[in-house]
Amino acid sequence: MARDVIDKSSNPLAVRKAIRAGGFAAPTNGIAVDYVQCNVLIVEQKYARDFAEFCARNVKSCPVLAVSEPGSPRLPDLADDLDLRTDLGSYRVFRNGQPSEDVSEICELWRDDFVTFAFGCSFSFEQALVRGGVDMRFLARGDTAALYISRFDAEAAGPFRGKIAVSMRPLTPAAAIRAIEVTQRYPAVHGAPIHIGLPELIGIDDLNQSIEKIGRTRVLADELPVFWACGVTPQLAVQNAGIDVCISHTPAYMLVTDLLLSKTLDRPPLAVAF
Amino acid sequence: MARDVIDKSSNPLAVRKAIRAGGFAAPTNGIAVDYVQCNVLIVEQKYARDFAEFCARNVKSCPVLAVSEPGSPRLPDLADDLDLRTDLGSYRVFRNGQPSEDVSEICELWRDDFVTFAFGCSFSFEQALVRGGVDMRFLARGDTAALYISRFDAEAAGPFRGKIAVSMRPLTPAAAIRAIEVTQRYPAVHGAPIHIGLPELIGIDDLNQSIEKIGRTRVLADELPVFWACGVTPQLAVQNAGIDVCISHTPAYMLVTDLLLSKTLDRPPLAVAF
Repeated sequence: MARDVIDKSSNPLAVRKAIRAGGFAAPTNGIAVDYVQCNVLIVEQKYARDFAEFCARNVKSCPVLAVSEPGSPRLPDLADDLDLRTDLGSYRVFRNGQPSEDVSEICELWRDDFVTFAFGCSFSFEQALVRGGVDMRFLARGDTAALYISRFDAEAAGPFRGKIAVSMRPLTPAAAIRAIEVTQRYPAVHGAPIHIGLPELIGIDDLNQSIEKIGRTRVLADELPVFWACGVTPQLAVQNAGIDVCISHTPAYMLVTDLLLSKTLDRPPLAVAF
Repeated sequence: MARDVIDKSSNPLAVRKAIRAGGFAAPTNGIAVDYVQCNVLIVEQKYARDFAEFCARNVKSCPVLAVSEPGSPRLPDLADDLDLRTDLGSYRVFRNGQPSEDVSEICELWRDDFVTFAFGCSFSFEQALVRGGVDMRFLARGDTAALYISRFDAEAAGPFRGKIAVSMRPLTPAAAIRAIEVTQRYPAVHGAPIHIGLPELIGIDDLNQSIEKIGRTRVLADELPVFWACGVTPQLAVQNAGIDVCISHTPAYMLVTDLLLSKTLDRPPLAVAF
């Protein structure tokens, strides 16, 4: 039997099955690149309405692609064979608003009143950028997008409030222009950037201080830092909300879906109503 | 009889008639803003093929909207009642490649072998930017787009060669992103910018040195300079070509057409073949 190599051309179901079986627990950037990867946030049903409103008000940070039925670990709009309890490589559990532990599955933690939100991840649009002809030389030199907390306030909804997190990619000016052209057509995976060029204006004084270990890059003299709204934003909001329990993916360990990135061209995020 | 005030809401035919009658000879920025204004270049027929090729190879600088029949002073695709000999507020005559004189009409200079090229002007997309919600505060403070010669070579065709001229508008980062989104959808009026943020990379060391008197603006601390390919590029190419005679508009004195700007959304420039 052929061994399933998990790489950029993997079938997304093969990736999920490998994760489910405990055979793959690593950041998913560069994996199954033609398919949409999602940020995941799981909240108690009593918070679902407020959280949906938070997403609606901050659509560039939280572009919703799917929401589960209460208690259901399925997201049939994103894949048939998908189990939210096992199919992420790493989960982050928040208790009383604080990150408590990272775990490899949440079968024991699962509850009948959990509602799962899945929204687009910038790992996905990086593939759109490559296909769109954007020179992603920071990837070629082994860097990854860096993450920061901007000074911009997200629009609050219920207990959910906080700053907008951003991901940054260093691009030459010509590549930055092309990146804006390309990503504006993918509103379901954060869309166009929200800032370019002058990080101190958005409260980022030191580009070396990425908030996540995985994010690491330098801006060369002929490059501009380009900032996109980031799916870490709702994790900040969850911490500020201080709710009892909530589970997200661990940053960079995304949900790999069966949704082709190409199918999200010009597709707006889901408008969720409770 | 009501006096025709020439302003932003003027009918374009009224503007051309006023110019034709000698009643209006001023830069056309801010005039009849819902209609496309054009750069004009008039060459002898023997150069038309090479010049068309130059436009095709440098489509962001020279997005062709119409080409006349040889000897005809009409451009029926742009307006019914239009006379290329009288309807521009000022013409620049080039002799042996050098700007020779600026004149208010060219009836006496007209020749049966003249071919006229009209291509989109950034005055037109400034209105698209305003409508697209771009904060054009440099206009509000009384500035206008500045013009420079970049270090980029245009792609040569026949005797036509030279550097790419650029127009620059200072925009906040958020406005710059929006401006890229908006202008990429107007390829017939230069499309998306070709540079942003690092002028020294494109050979512009001093932003105060606009090549045309009318261009004048400052880049504030919270702004980025954004550069679009400019219709002055073919005038540079004409000078390098050193051809006997050639006539263009005087910069900023554009041809005001009956073509609604809104009709050029997503419309590619004309592919001209001789």
